[in-house]
Amino acid sequence: MLRVAILIFEDFEILDVCGPIEMLGMYPESYKINLVARQEGIVSSAQGVSMVAEHSFETDTHYDVILVPGGHGTRREVNQHDTIDWLKGECGSAKFVTSVCTGAALLARAGALDGKRATTNKMNFEWVRSQGPHVSWEYDARWVEDAETFTSSGVSAGMDMTLALIQRTISQKAAEDAAAWAEYDWHHDPSWDPFAEMWRNRTAG
Amino acid sequence: MLRVAILIFEDFEILDVCGPIEMLGMYPESYKINLVARQEGIVSSAQGVSMVAEHSFETDTHYDVILVPGGHGTRREVNQHDTIDWLKGECGSAKFVTSVCTGAALLARAGALDGKRATTNKMNFEWVRSQGPHVSWEYDARWVEDAETFTSSGVSAGMDMTLALIQRTISQKAAEDAAAWAEYDWHHDPSWDPFAEMWRNRTAG
Repeated sequence: MLRVAILIFEDFEILDVCGPIEMLGMYPESYKINLVARQEGIVSSAQGVSMVAEHSFETDTHYDVILVPGGHGTRREVNQHDTIDWLKGECGSAKFVTSVCTGAALLARAGALDGKRATTNKMNFEWVRSQGPHVSWEYDARWVEDAETFTSSGVSAGMDMTLALIQRTISQKAAEDAAAWAEYDWHHDPSWDPFAEMWRNRTAG
Repeated sequence: MLRVAILIFEDFEILDVCGPIEMLGMYPESYKINLVARQEGIVSSAQGVSMVAEHSFETDTHYDVILVPGGHGTRREVNQHDTIDWLKGECGSAKFVTSVCTGAALLARAGALDGKRATTNKMNFEWVRSQGPHVSWEYDARWVEDAETFTSSGVSAGMDMTLALIQRTISQKAAEDAAAWAEYDWHHDPSWDPFAEMWRNRTAG
C-alpha cells in the first residue's frame, strides 16, 4: 500500500488532480489517496468547483508518493513559504515525487528537481523553467521519468504519467486495465508530444 | 452564457465530472457551472475524494445544460425518486441534456432518452440498457449526439463529448483551443471506439 498525498491550493487545476485520482482510484488496495492543503477543508479550483482536503500541512503522516498539480494558483504558491517548506520536507522522505503541468514549478522551488530531468506544460514553459535553474528541463516530452521523479506536461498528460506510475509500482497489466476501465486512450510513449510542436509554432507565429 | 448543472451523488465517478469541467472551464464567459446534489455541501466520489455541491434539488435556477456522471452510485440513484424527479423536471426545460458513462442510466430512468439514440460505457452496457427500453442504444460509439442530447461512453469519453458540445455551442475553434490548452488528444470522430471491440472480446472470452 502506497500513501499518496495530492497537494491542493486555491486555483489548482481540476483535471491535474482528478485525472490521476481516477487512475490510481482503480486500485484502492494499492494506493491510499489523501488531498492535502494548507488547512483541512474546502479548497476552490481554478475552474470554480471545490474539493475537500482531509489533511493539512500539520497532519503527521508519512507519504510514499507526492503529487503536485498545476493551475494558475501555482503563481502564488511558489512564493508561499509554508507550501515550499512542506514540499521540501515531504519530497525528502517520499519514494516518488510527481507533478502535473505547472506543479513542476513548486517542486522546482522546493529543490526537489535539482539535478534531474523534468518537464512541464508548454504554454507556461519559460515561467516554470525560471523557477528551477538547476533542473534539466525537457520541452518535447509527454512526461519524464528520472529515477523516482515523474513530471508531466500539461493537464491531460497527468493521466498518461499516472498510468506509467501504476506500471512501475504494480504492473504493466494493471496500467493497461486502468486505462481500459476508464476508456482512456493511454499514450504509452513518453516522447509522444504533438503539443510541444504546436506551441513552438504558436509562440513563433 | 449557458448555465450548466452537473449532478453529483454519493459514489459518483470523479473523472466523469472533472473532465467536462476542465473543458467547459476554459470559457467562464460562456458556461456557468454549478454542482447540484440532493443537498448542498460535501459529496464523496467513488474514488473517495469529495467535492462540494453549491446547489440542491431545491435551488430555484433554470439550467441550460444538464450533465449526469456515472460511477457505482448510479446503481443506487436509479431507484431514488428525488433524483429521478429532479431529472424529469430539469431535462424537460434544459436545452442540452448530457451524460457520461453510466449517467445515461439515470437519464433513461427519467425518460429523458426515450425515442433517442444514446450510448454509455461498455463494461456495464447491459445494465444501462435495461434502464431504458425505449432508447435506441448504440454500442459502438465514443459519444452520440441526437439533436440536443449528448451521451458519452465510459469516463474519459466525457471529455471528447464535452469538446463536441463546445463545438456546437461556441465554435470548432473554441473546442480545438480547449483541447490544446489541456494538452488533450481530442478524438473528433464520435464513431472512434476501440473500447467497444475490446469489451466485446473480453465478454466473449
